[in-house]
Amino acid sequence: MRIAELSRTSGVPAATIKYYVREGLLPSGVRTHHNQSDYNDEHVNRLRLIRALVDIGGLSVGTAKELLTVLDSGTMTARESLGHVLYALGARRSPVGDEQRDAATRDVASLLERRGWNITETSPARATLVDACAALRQIGHADVVEAIDSYAAASETIAATDMAVVAKKSSIEQMTETAIVGTVLGDTLLSALRRLAQEHVSATALPQD
Amino acid sequence: MRIAELSRTSGVPAATIKYYVREGLLPSGVRTHHNQSDYNDEHVNRLRLIRALVDIGGLSVGTAKELLTVLDSGTMTARESLGHVLYALGARRSPVGDEQRDAATRDVASLLERRGWNITETSPARATLVDACAALRQIGHADVVEAIDSYAAASETIAATDMAVVAKKSSIEQMTETAIVGTVLGDTLLSALRRLAQEHVSATALPQD
Repeated sequence: MRIAELSRTSGVPAATIKYYVREGLLPSGVRTHHNQSDYNDEHVNRLRLIRALVDIGGLSVGTAKELLTVLDSGTMTARESLGHVLYALGARRSPVGDEQRDAATRDVASLLERRGWNITETSPARATLVDACAALRQIGHADVVEAIDSYAAASETIAATDMAVVAKKSSIEQMTETAIVGTVLGDTLLSALRRLAQEHVSATALPQD
Repeated sequence: MRIAELSRTSGVPAATIKYYVREGLLPSGVRTHHNQSDYNDEHVNRLRLIRALVDIGGLSVGTAKELLTVLDSGTMTARESLGHVLYALGARRSPVGDEQRDAATRDVASLLERRGWNITETSPARATLVDACAALRQIGHADVVEAIDSYAAASETIAATDMAVVAKKSSIEQMTETAIVGTVLGDTLLSALRRLAQEHVSATALPQD
């Protein structure tokens, strides 16, 4: 199909499709006569994946590209591939709460020890967790940090579900795509579920006036 | 203190402080002679809260402003206040997966019924959840949607922890601030914990090669 039909089928404007091709998220179409390109169903599927990651998952185009590069690399084990996905989704936030950084580093190290989680020192999620704990302490909400064991237990249940869905796939590529989609769109799904559950729980847990 | 000292104490550039004042996130200082403004510790605390929400929580300045407006309104019950917070944090994503919208709407309605969650029709989190399920179905990952009961159960545990932290506060204003901070920075904290738990769980759940 030509770019006009690809645009119609996928709902993505032609200019945006060209942008994704330039940025390396979407493979080029096959050049035909008259300087036109021919696209196929794989382009439609890839476009839908990109839009889901960016529009629903809230990813930047740069992060989406990193994840798609992992997906396309095709030479890793499932664990290596998941590691690359998790690292691409890592923290790039400006740290705040510098004065509380030592306390927050201890918060995280002792949590990991209590839970027996074996995490590499360079894990970006570990750095994000330290950032979040430092910021919470600095703005006077150490009480949220003190609830971290309960949050970690729930997160382990969630991760077990994640990995059960991933492990059912029959190829590394399918596992990697499921890990990407499940983590990115899963974050959106989980934060929506959390707000709905808060609305439900608040009906009994909060004072009425 | 003058703006230069406020900037030094909070680590926020003076131009950004002026921007937050213009946008209504930060109260003006008290005008003194020579057209200068005088700021106090409350400005320092408010600036730290803004930076935590924006830098660590990843909020837009517009959403941060909506939340601070709820915090400053001071005329609501705890539940009303939480409702306003949850709605301000609602969905403003472009929906994708339109073809799957009916199925996704049923996914969410039946989940809410199974869990006995009483949620208003206009809940933005409900709309986000439908968006996420529609997108997952469209890109061929209905398997993630099928795991939604497990995710919802974990989310209810998380929400119960959230509300227990909020309910300990002694004033509506403190409850509101805790709900804002716990929900926004909590999202960052929870997504980091999920990635760490995935790294831990993947060591046993995924094939080694």
